[in-house]
Amino acid sequence: MAITPTPADKFSFGLWTIGYNGADPFGGPTRPPLDVVDAVENLAKIGAYGLTFHDNDLFPFGCTEEKRRSQIDRVKQACADTGLIIPMITTNLFSEPVFKDGGFTSNDRSVRRFALRKVLRNLDLAAELGAKTFVMWGGREGAEYDSAKDIRSALSRYREAVNLLGDYVTDKGYDIRFAIEPKPNEPRGDILLPTVGHAMAFITTLERPEIVGVNPEVGHEQMAGLNFAAGIAQALYQGKLFHIDLNGQRGIKYDQDLVFGHGDLHNAFALVDLLENGGPNGGQAYDGPRHFDYKPSRTEDITGVWDSAKANIQTYLLLKERAKAFRADPEVQQMLAAAKVPDLALPTLGEGESYDDLLADRASYEDFDTDAYFGGKGFGFVRLQQLALEHLLGAR
Amino acid sequence: MAITPTPADKFSFGLWTIGYNGADPFGGPTRPPLDVVDAVENLAKIGAYGLTFHDNDLFPFGCTEEKRRSQIDRVKQACADTGLIIPMITTNLFSEPVFKDGGFTSNDRSVRRFALRKVLRNLDLAAELGAKTFVMWGGREGAEYDSAKDIRSALSRYREAVNLLGDYVTDKGYDIRFAIEPKPNEPRGDILLPTVGHAMAFITTLERPEIVGVNPEVGHEQMAGLNFAAGIAQALYQGKLFHIDLNGQRGIKYDQDLVFGHGDLHNAFALVDLLENGGPNGGQAYDGPRHFDYKPSRTEDITGVWDSAKANIQTYLLLKERAKAFRADPEVQQMLAAAKVPDLALPTLGEGESYDDLLADRASYEDFDTDAYFGGKGFGFVRLQQLALEHLLGAR
Amino acid sequence: MAITPTPADKFSFGLWTIGYNGADPFGGPTRPPLDVVDAVENLAKIGAYGLTFHDNDLFPFGCTEEKRRSQIDRVKQACADTGLIIPMITTNLFSEPVFKDGGFTSNDRSVRRFALRKVLRNLDLAAELGAKTFVMWGGREGAEYDSAKDIRSALSRYREAVNLLGDYVTDKGYDIRFAIEPKPNEPRGDILLPTVGHAMAFITTLERPEIVGVNPEVGHEQMAGLNFAAGIAQALYQGKLFHIDLNGQRGIKYDQDLVFGHGDLHNAFALVDLLENGGPNGGQAYDGPRHFDYKPSRTEDITGVWDSAKANIQTYLLLKERAKAFRADPEVQQMLAAAKVPDLALPTLGEGESYDDLLADRASYEDFDTDAYFGGKGFGFVRLQQLALEHLLGAR
Amino acid sequence: MAITPTPADKFSFGLWTIGYNGADPFGGPTRPPLDVVDAVENLAKIGAYGLTFHDNDLFPFGCTEEKRRSQIDRVKQACADTGLIIPMITTNLFSEPVFKDGGFTSNDRSVRRFALRKVLRNLDLAAELGAKTFVMWGGREGAEYDSAKDIRSALSRYREAVNLLGDYVTDKGYDIRFAIEPKPNEPRGDILLPTVGHAMAFITTLERPEIVGVNPEVGHEQMAGLNFAAGIAQALYQGKLFHIDLNGQRGIKYDQDLVFGHGDLHNAFALVDLLENGGPNGGQAYDGPRHFDYKPSRTEDITGVWDSAKANIQTYLLLKERAKAFRADPEVQQMLAAAKVPDLALPTLGEGESYDDLLADRASYEDFDTDAYFGGKGFGFVRLQQLALEHLLGAR
Repeated sequence: MAITPTPADKFSFGLWTIGYNGADPFGGPTRPPLDVVDAVENLAKIGAYGLTFHDNDLFPFGCTEEKRRSQIDRVKQACADTGLIIPMITTNLFSEPVFKDGGFTSNDRSVRRFALRKVLRNLDLAAELGAKTFVMWGGREGAEYDSAKDIRSALSRYREAVNLLGDYVTDKGYDIRFAIEPKPNEPRGDILLPTVGHAMAFITTLERPEIVGVNPEVGHEQMAGLNFAAGIAQALYQGKLFHIDLNGQRGIKYDQDLVFGHGDLHNAFALVDLLENGGPNGGQAYDGPRHFDYKPSRTEDITGVWDSAKANIQTYLLLKERAKAFRADPEVQQMLAAAKVPDLALPTLGEGESYDDLLADRASYEDFDTDAYFGGKGFGFVRLQQLALEHLLGAR
Repeated sequence: MAITPTPADKFSFGLWTIGYNGADPFGGPTRPPLDVVDAVENLAKIGAYGLTFHDNDLFPFGCTEEKRRSQIDRVKQACADTGLIIPMITTNLFSEPVFKDGGFTSNDRSVRRFALRKVLRNLDLAAELGAKTFVMWGGREGAEYDSAKDIRSALSRYREAVNLLGDYVTDKGYDIRFAIEPKPNEPRGDILLPTVGHAMAFITTLERPEIVGVNPEVGHEQMAGLNFAAGIAQALYQGKLFHIDLNGQRGIKYDQDLVFGHGDLHNAFALVDLLENGGPNGGQAYDGPRHFDYKPSRTEDITGVWDSAKANIQTYLLLKERAKAFRADPEVQQMLAAAKVPDLALPTLGEGESYDDLLADRASYEDFDTDAYFGGKGFGFVRLQQLALEHLLGAR
Repeated sequence: MAITPTPADKFSFGLWTIGYNGADPFGGPTRPPLDVVDAVENLAKIGAYGLTFHDNDLFPFGCTEEKRRSQIDRVKQACADTGLIIPMITTNLFSEPVFKDGGFTSNDRSVRRFALRKVLRNLDLAAELGAKTFVMWGGREGAEYDSAKDIRSALSRYREAVNLLGDYVTDKGYDIRFAIEPKPNEPRGDILLPTVGHAMAFITTLERPEIVGVNPEVGHEQMAGLNFAAGIAQALYQGKLFHIDLNGQRGIKYDQDLVFGHGDLHNAFALVDLLENGGPNGGQAYDGPRHFDYKPSRTEDITGVWDSAKANIQTYLLLKERAKAFRADPEVQQMLAAAKVPDLALPTLGEGESYDDLLADRASYEDFDTDAYFGGKGFGFVRLQQLALEHLLGAR
Repeated sequence: MAITPTPADKFSFGLWTIGYNGADPFGGPTRPPLDVVDAVENLAKIGAYGLTFHDNDLFPFGCTEEKRRSQIDRVKQACADTGLIIPMITTNLFSEPVFKDGGFTSNDRSVRRFALRKVLRNLDLAAELGAKTFVMWGGREGAEYDSAKDIRSALSRYREAVNLLGDYVTDKGYDIRFAIEPKPNEPRGDILLPTVGHAMAFITTLERPEIVGVNPEVGHEQMAGLNFAAGIAQALYQGKLFHIDLNGQRGIKYDQDLVFGHGDLHNAFALVDLLENGGPNGGQAYDGPRHFDYKPSRTEDITGVWDSAKANIQTYLLLKERAKAFRADPEVQQMLAAAKVPDLALPTLGEGESYDDLLADRASYEDFDTDAYFGGKGFGFVRLQQLALEHLLGAR
């Protein structure tokens, strides 16, 4: 009964996802390392179109240039052999002790310079590999204690760094856009740019805002109790959804990185509906990679790793089917109309209407029957939600 | 496509649910009052078997005995006319100013005495109406500030109150059991007995623990980020699930009281599976009322009220179908076995095995191959969860 | 021992705060209404400099123009008599049934038009009263269910509304700026512009972003688990802190509106330190009203109302003293330097340094000793935090 | 200004706390291992009286008996040399791959048997070292997915394990009590016995409940948004506070293990007040170890490690001073009386009063003036909280 993915679905996986060894704060690895060639071959088999990675997923921090080059060549060959592409790469500025207070915003200026160098080098690699998106997750950019970090200085340094990187790719003519990945906390007590909103606000202060967008992750926004689909809608509204990280999270707790759909299922359904049917005339509202940034549970062995990778894809495709059926259902369309959902697209003022015209329109205020909204003029939102639920359950 | 409920399903509703007028902390009512006879008639129509209420849902606080009696008679007649029963009633110790610091545990002893009198009176009513369960939600039993409430004294007073009520029903020969409803916060900053666990621990300190159990509510446990189905399993394990409140909650925030299933859908599925298929030989693990304690959204008019009431029932019945299919699926059974889920029912020690025998069993320790768990012996939990998801989505 | 506030401290209170009648989702009022003249006189006595209100705090929704005018005249007279000013007013678009799906973003276009008229009228009042800030809290702009609200259309309508209001004040020559107040949820399941970040990002899409800023509230950001002081720092960084709402919240739960400092005390200390000592040369970083948006607990009578109002002021002034002492302590300055906190203000690149220069600087990368950060180069952040705690406790 | 601790303060630290190497889910160690002898010597210097550890903090999992014995002898000698004692030890059932699905409640029966053996062996060590408390944190006893774990079977196996251990210590005549440490989640999605309440409820099902209590940790309860001091009060009420883990947590997020007091400071104050002044006649309510279970931040080197250890002690002692002064303040006593806090200790029924007497007391109900609670009979809780805050700030 499984639905078969195609490259047009643009499913991609981080090397660190399927390659996750199971280590967590209370235990070491439960699985051996996964070689990148093995990863590429298996991703191709399950229908993915892309692989992504941090520099140090592919080659160790501080390794020789020979080792680095050998690993780069191996992944290029594996991609060539399988047809997989590398749509995005990113830089690890969080694992090594040197980054214990962050990279771009470490209080230690030497560390900031080192971090910039590491990223510049990785940008060259991104260009070499044809990656069009360069994600920046500033997981260590933050603090546990308020007096330990001058937030405004930190934002200035963040800005300085992104501006410099923007100059670099522009000058080099690289076809690369940046995507900032927000997260509220973990591993720092509080992280800079904690939500999609904070990141998008920050981007407007940059010198080249047009080449910087966001890479929201399901679990990261949900760790702040925020509605992920709504945040994505605002990112789309502001033209900033450059990339997306799909996974599952069960409420406000540590970062779980479960399989997509294994968390808040209603919101996952709304998200897929938005991405797939939210565009003009009901087409795709987002055409970039559907990138899974999840972790196969620590309880699993390699069989479980690949089962879980496939589960991400199947869930997405199932939700896509459900969302199409939901939108096509005449009763849904009728209830949407009754709930005036499409009416929100109508401007509040008429064409050419000025505020003076509005002020002169007695029907809008002086003669408006506000009493009718007591005991009447219900919106039918619950019925609509129940229709969504029944479609989600395949029960209609 | 709707599934038709029967009285055997034991669906019940609080009068305060369908009768909710839409008022919330930031706005007044959006709907007029719902008469109890109207409520009973419509509940019967949609397939409910029971109505529940607080005393002051039925008659106003401080009303005359005539008014009180008239309302009691009207609900009795409506039940007689429709076949509905009244399986549970409860007492409002939270709405009036006199209860602003609680009822049983108000710092003000006069209030505590008044509260006890109000509850004793309502116990007589419960007996008259044939209610078998008497719920106690201590929503105002708590504090905003730590120094304002001596928690141990509060628990002593709570205990004193429940002991007295237990004596009363026992002496009177009433066939009534008590069910304490936990909640972590709202309307108080912190509420006494905040979770199912705290309530069950407290019950063991009572003089008549056997007639006191819990009435867990989906949203209340989820407001503390706790797994509701797991909490219910512990309540069943301890023989304390005397009643249950079904509704929906979207994470850690204010008490939403959404329609059942309109919150955490995975957990709702697990809950129905537990209640319906968790008993001996896969039968019901709980045979009491399936009581919906939800609120029709403030955006709805009376049509939306009844649509939402029906949505609770439909969702429960759909999940029941999905859970039956899940349990019946041979692949699920195979994966459960592979994940050793049934093996957990096997005692860890063999029949008659002592700790000395265990200490002498070299296979269990000295010769046990712990290394096999690295890179092997995966549990397949993710695959199992994906099967659950696909059954939930009606996709298998 | 109480510290005496002065008008220069700019303490202001909402009429709805001291006037809160104690009603909440589970109970009615515990206190009678507070007359506005009484409110003004008592606020003056306790050292406040300003009163703020929603239109319908002062006069009822739908009242006659005579009633409205009479109330406006009374508050003006009371202010004239006491010297209090009205630095901010705002519009109630959330309490009445007509706003059950919001005001600016209701699915119902007639409601949107009505809401705009209500706000335009209130802008005239703001100008008449000399209010310089016009707050907009869109508490009902949101949804419980994802399919019920087209978020992008909602943002378009929000934008349309704010643009029109911006035109209006500009054309009229009103000296008024707008401040959007974010909140993640309650009373809606999810509210549009849920955090300071989302609001600031949205503002950049407006036609007149320069006259629109934010009015962050302590509890609202903390309801999303976000660091309030850090959010305020980003708002200051982006020049958008137009107004601020001070209160207390004890974690992720319903909106508590406790007294300022009666929630997260460490963060309150950091906030006051930022506002008072975070500016150039350690001066004020924010010079607008210190506005308390709190609720006197429902357990209190009128004595408790005014005790709680005074508690807000005292706590702010105490924290201000503590923060000054913290900044003046030589050991703190030494530890800040050791932790390199001031170094974060230094640009990462030297003056005139290009990325080519950086790439050529072997000391920054090839020769950089990253190993030194293992087992060394500790930042001393915990010691710094302990110094902050000891200053907060008045123990140094 | 530092307050000097004495052994009578009973401050103890886990070897894993000061020995934490800085590794977290996103990065490796930032500090080298700390030798146990070094740990003991330094703990003695800073005024601790006790050291605690997991078996594998002291010696590696699977090491030879020689290695194990050598480490045990070294810690014994170090204790003898310094006067430190070992009041508690515990067993690591969570770090190794073999425990990836838990120890006592792994679905894999062989693992359960292995876990029991490991714990039995560690009990012998506890007895040898004179530890009086044996903590059991079941961090891996849980699940990510509802269908993966039969909760009732898991509780049965937990019960079987604790019963067997109880038999063992009883038969051996060991002077050891068990303390279960609850946690809601992390590293598992949901952990069994998630709160103090759930653990205490479970304990009542055991064969030897009298030798099993709880070891609550500040951050663990606060990860569920629960009031820690209130939970401790219930544990004291039920006679189950056998041990306590002190640390700091900033809200609902990952397990932070900050320094005690560096999280919710109001609640830390209330906790110390309860422990130190909550007993009969205002004496200690708890006389066991004040055990710090925290982590020195990853940003710190060894200097920061010991600074942070000292910070725990200083904060506790400062709060103890503040709490004594709070209790001694006549104005506080007056406000407590006005708020009727002590009255809650009075039974609601008079001595010898029956429910019949109460029912006959017209003053308690028929003639009781409930109207007086509207607009009057305020409790003064906010004033009381402000007094607490001012004492906390050393401002009175």
